[in-house]
Amino acid sequence: MAKANAFYAQSGGVTAVINASACGVIEAARQHKDRIGKVYAGRSGILGALREELIDTSRESAKAIAGLRSTPSGAFGSCRYKLKSLEENRREYERLIEVFEAHDIRYFFYTGGGDSQDTANKVAQLGSTMGYPITCIGIPKTVDNDLPLTDCCPGFGSVAKYVAVSTREAALDVASMCETSTKVFVLETMGRHAGWIAAAAALAQSGPGDPPHIILLPEVPLDRERFLAKVRATVEREGYCVIVVSEGAQYADGTFVADAGTKDAFGHTQLGGVAPTIANMVRAELGYKYHWAVADYLQRAARHIASATDVAQAYAVGKAAVEFALAGRNAVMPTIVRKSDSPYRWTIGEAPLSRVANRERKMPRRFISADGFGITPAARRYLAPLIQGEDYPRYRNGVPEYVTLKNQLVKPKLAAFEP
Amino acid sequence: MAKANAFYAQSGGVTAVINASACGVIEAARQHKDRIGKVYAGRSGILGALREELIDTSRESAKAIAGLRSTPSGAFGSCRYKLKSLEENRREYERLIEVFEAHDIRYFFYTGGGDSQDTANKVAQLGSTMGYPITCIGIPKTVDNDLPLTDCCPGFGSVAKYVAVSTREAALDVASMCETSTKVFVLETMGRHAGWIAAAAALAQSGPGDPPHIILLPEVPLDRERFLAKVRATVEREGYCVIVVSEGAQYADGTFVADAGTKDAFGHTQLGGVAPTIANMVRAELGYKYHWAVADYLQRAARHIASATDVAQAYAVGKAAVEFALAGRNAVMPTIVRKSDSPYRWTIGEAPLSRVANRERKMPRRFISADGFGITPAARRYLAPLIQGEDYPRYRNGVPEYVTLKNQLVKPKLAAFEP
Repeated sequence: MAKANAFYAQSGGVTAVINASACGVIEAARQHKDRIGKVYAGRSGILGALREELIDTSRESAKAIAGLRSTPSGAFGSCRYKLKSLEENRREYERLIEVFEAHDIRYFFYTGGGDSQDTANKVAQLGSTMGYPITCIGIPKTVDNDLPLTDCCPGFGSVAKYVAVSTREAALDVASMCETSTKVFVLETMGRHAGWIAAAAALAQSGPGDPPHIILLPEVPLDRERFLAKVRATVEREGYCVIVVSEGAQYADGTFVADAGTKDAFGHTQLGGVAPTIANMVRAELGYKYHWAVADYLQRAARHIASATDVAQAYAVGKAAVEFALAGRNAVMPTIVRKSDSPYRWTIGEAPLSRVANRERKMPRRFISADGFGITPAARRYLAPLIQGEDYPRYRNGVPEYVTLKNQLVKPKLAAFEP
Repeated sequence: MAKANAFYAQSGGVTAVINASACGVIEAARQHKDRIGKVYAGRSGILGALREELIDTSRESAKAIAGLRSTPSGAFGSCRYKLKSLEENRREYERLIEVFEAHDIRYFFYTGGGDSQDTANKVAQLGSTMGYPITCIGIPKTVDNDLPLTDCCPGFGSVAKYVAVSTREAALDVASMCETSTKVFVLETMGRHAGWIAAAAALAQSGPGDPPHIILLPEVPLDRERFLAKVRATVEREGYCVIVVSEGAQYADGTFVADAGTKDAFGHTQLGGVAPTIANMVRAELGYKYHWAVADYLQRAARHIASATDVAQAYAVGKAAVEFALAGRNAVMPTIVRKSDSPYRWTIGEAPLSRVANRERKMPRRFISADGFGITPAARRYLAPLIQGEDYPRYRNGVPEYVTLKNQLVKPKLAAFEP
């Protein structure tokens, strides 16, 4: 294939390391100027392609691009816009091809979760249908760690490390004051459908009995009575109880615990997430003084405590995406392949987008302890390597020095289009 | 004074660096074995003295004590137990003296906020009244930064850094997705009476217009209409709005915003703190999609992102407390004295406990911007140095390697006493 330009976009919820993947893509592309001309980034993700809002990354210095490796969130903007099926909205796909053609874009790099890999796959199909040759490579990214066929998802290791570190620290706080103050602490983590993030809190433990004492996963229906009995037993034995709860925790009937807590008996909407709901349940039934925390975006943006392993993998899948494209691969996604647990060794593999798209990987039952409130040694062997190593950003005036790009748009060539 | 033992206790809410002060006390005492015998630490703070539950710190290795410098929370336990006045409960003070006498304790080191400095002062007075010579030195500690006569309070700089770093990171997250997702993000910080912690979020800014766009301080009564107008104007100008709110934010009539939000029109108790209340207000009045976070204990336990300045000061006031005692000072507290803003230079000063006790330092008006939603350049000059420098703990298996002490109790010599 002759020299052509590339389009890169970030999709869905951002992470502490999604920009490290962007860094990998752009640095690798710059190494192959004979094959790849410019890398255009979509402003606000795929919307940028549909609207012909293309950021010219060639305007950014090598230093700025290198700085992406240690800058959290999406430097070009991201969106949750999901392209419909070809049948439902063929016009949008055709518009994509028009924009690509107008700007001589023959490479499509798309960083995201399951939905996004589906989009990348559809674009690849459309390319052949319409006779417009375009190479589509997906790049895995999701804090939820729920993509199949890869050992883990870039973004997850860093949120896992944040949750493990924060749990260890907050637990020390509670332990030191539990005699006269807070006895129960509840930390709410992300994870609407899969409990990977909450499970990672268990990495705060260095021995049996260590906090967190209870982890509430979406995969295990919440049994109020068993849960409350375990809280009571823990407080009686340890003097305090640290609970980590996934935002997706639910009852056996599929009701989210958070939703259950947000309406009172009269149906009035109440405030708060699952952490205050659980804390209130403990208070009402057992009378313990509680505190709760909801980390929300702080956890997925916490580049200051990113996992060095995660940063390296995020960069590697970005770089591999370019190498795959140049090697003539299409409709595939670089994956992380685990070679060994300890020492952790991994390499880059490859999965077809058709097998990655729209499949959700939950915590397997063998990773969940018999009582449902913790994880097994197998889960620990899986999770532990993913938070290894620190990769600190540079600081200036006491805060991390994250890069801000110029984000200059290319002059549009087509008529306006609003998706 | 001949050789005697020392009693050390931690009081009130713990911090990321209170153990660094303990490290300073114990290491300094070990340097003067001719004057100070053993350092006994109170188990769960002053309760340990009343109950004669004394931890023998001489059983701890030099390595373990050195490890305290980078371990958050209270290694010996802390409590919020406030001794009543001498008139109201003379028996408790007499018990303290009995325990001190039984264990040949002639030095009393007490780390805490305003209430604790009052207690230390009362013990000093009682010592002279009862003819039991005891040297009482207070050690400043409070994340609230509300002690008078000291430039700042150890513990504050680290929580300030946590809040500034977290705000910068979460704001990048919101900015990158605001076009199609969350437009308003609310972060709740500690600070029931004074807004120092929330104010520190402004250190996330590197220029005008940077987030956080609005800071709600307890010192400035919340005016709903002006607040909502500023949120709307910010979203229209920047595309998103980041709000940092102190847990102590209140209306002009003194009602806490958090309390106002926890009951609905029917008087039913609702869940949640001030962040969800503010977020809900924005949603109800302006219709913006929101997210909110409540960092709670995570912020004051966050040793992983402690301010190096704060760690150094916490250690220094601990060390100075011992040096003051050995120099014959009594009923005083080491303070931080600022010599210059930039470069920040500081030294150790001294304040009488009688002037420190029970006085609360709020944010001065000159530190609050004209519209009440931000801070002034003077506040920035004051705050900026306090978060300077990183002082990372050691990591093992991806999480900080915090020390756990043996905490062996000394054999009691007196009859049991329950406060």
